Amino acid sequence: MTTLEQKQTLTEWFQSLQKRICGALEEIEQEFQHAAILPGHFEFKSWERDEGGGGTMGIMHGAVFEKAGVNVSTVHGEFSPEFRARIPGAADDPRFWASGLSLVIHPMNPYVPAIHMNTRHIVTTRSWFGGGSDLTPTFEFAEDTKSFHQAFKDACDLHDPTDYPRFKQWCDEYFYLPHRGEARGIGGIFYDNLDTNDFDHDFMFTKAVGEAFLKIYPDLVRRRMNTPWTDEGKQKQYVKRGRYVEFNLMYDRGTLFGLKTGGNVEAILMSLPPMASWP
Amino acid sequence: MTTLEQKQTLTEWFQSLQKRICGALEEIEQEFQHAAILPGHFEFKSWERDEGGGGTMGIMHGAVFEKAGVNVSTVHGEFSPEFRARIPGAADDPRFWASGLSLVIHPMNPYVPAIHMNTRHIVTTRSWFGGGSDLTPTFEFAEDTKSFHQAFKDACDLHDPTDYPRFKQWCDEYFYLPHRGEARGIGGIFYDNLDTNDFDHDFMFTKAVGEAFLKIYPDLVRRRMNTPWTDEGKQKQYVKRGRYVEFNLMYDRGTLFGLKTGGNVEAILMSLPPMASWP
Repeated sequence: MTTLEQKQTLTEWFQSLQKRICGALEEIEQEFQHAAILPGHFEFKSWERDEGGGGTMGIMHGAVFEKAGVNVSTVHGEFSPEFRARIPGAADDPRFWASGLSLVIHPMNPYVPAIHMNTRHIVTTRSWFGGGSDLTPTFEFAEDTKSFHQAFKDACDLHDPTDYPRFKQWCDEYFYLPHRGEARGIGGIFYDNLDTNDFDHDFMFTKAVGEAFLKIYPDLVRRRMNTPWTDEGKQKQYVKRGRYVEFNLMYDRGTLFGLKTGGNVEAILMSLPPMASWP
Repeated sequence: MTTLEQKQTLTEWFQSLQKRICGALEEIEQEFQHAAILPGHFEFKSWERDEGGGGTMGIMHGAVFEKAGVNVSTVHGEFSPEFRARIPGAADDPRFWASGLSLVIHPMNPYVPAIHMNTRHIVTTRSWFGGGSDLTPTFEFAEDTKSFHQAFKDACDLHDPTDYPRFKQWCDEYFYLPHRGEARGIGGIFYDNLDTNDFDHDFMFTKAVGEAFLKIYPDLVRRRMNTPWTDEGKQKQYVKRGRYVEFNLMYDRGTLFGLKTGGNVEAILMSLPPMASWP
């Protein structure tokens, strides 16, 4: 089982990753030149949970990033009877501990893709890692798609070469809108219940996913953030974001689970876009 | 049971109501003076369902009505095994017939309230009416709220004086976002499984609900459509519409039922706002 020391290490990792990601995004804001909009800065807001633990939400409204939310939380408590049967290792003992980072970024420029990334560790009578990252471009560029997939393949390959094909397919199946017959974006990786019985090895992978994000997303943003865009392109982005809303509110397990278990509504729904359209 | 002749009468009523409502909304577009935006007109699009029947979507993007969707449909088929147990009278014989009108209007001016109205008749081995209307102002005016409730109380009182308190409470309970602890709007009426064993009497009520809409909504629009508004007011409207999206995608039974039973996605999601914000 996850030790107290490991829990401390995990919490510190997620917190330091939040700082580094927010710093990397603010750096891009500083680099970007725009006459009318000042570079954005993250604002942080801490919250506590009645049952135990809490988190810090980071949110930025900038010139490059129309809305970027980067949240960390470390919470503990007991699962309600409704959820005990569905959570591994919680049927007989409902107590849990969970720590993680979750981010969603909606860029201003429709040529810059939106992104989601989440990594977490959960402890019941069992313990495991989960997470993933997926990219949602309004306009797809084959070379960007390729670089994105490669970055997360590299992270998977450090852990186990059989991970990547499974986690990529899991992502494609997960981020799918059945009522539209459409994928949310171009995919990425998704994994859950990851436990090879080697904490250090699985934690190394969690860290590699975070590093992959830091390696690839700022690069993808810099490739496109100066591309001029039109009202028509922006409108297309608003419609794509509408699909993102449909997915998150109708299918995303984390969102629905969080809202139904009395999670922090503001933190959970930070994933929703600053502006979306159903024309 | 509903006769073939009654089905024909119902279908014609919903179709004629659609025409009258669209006409009433277009009249307001004509009345309204705006230098930059031309008066809107409804565009109609018919669709057919593989299993039987179809409908006509009416949509307008205008100067007063940023997006107005008024749909009618008359469909028949068989409920899937998943739904048979949940639909009155469908457990042993899954065949159904349904006809109805459904509308959602998102006005341009944030001082004009958004509205939803739906009336329908469903036939399985049983038959019943359902429907309702609720108002969603961004800025509430007590006198408008009062007039709105009065119009639908008058419709209910024609049918049975005990209807209104029940249907009003049902509406308040139905259009509620538990995760926000917020009502969607100021309510109205909501009813389902209405069958007094007197088709003519219940159909008269259905017609009265349609007439109540025609009496009150154009009046409420005219009261506020010339009130000047600011960017701040418009932003507040976008946020209120975000809540509307949350309700429809997370809780609205008609939306979820329609999407899960292979309904017409374009017609079902016509209820979603032209632009919404989660800042």
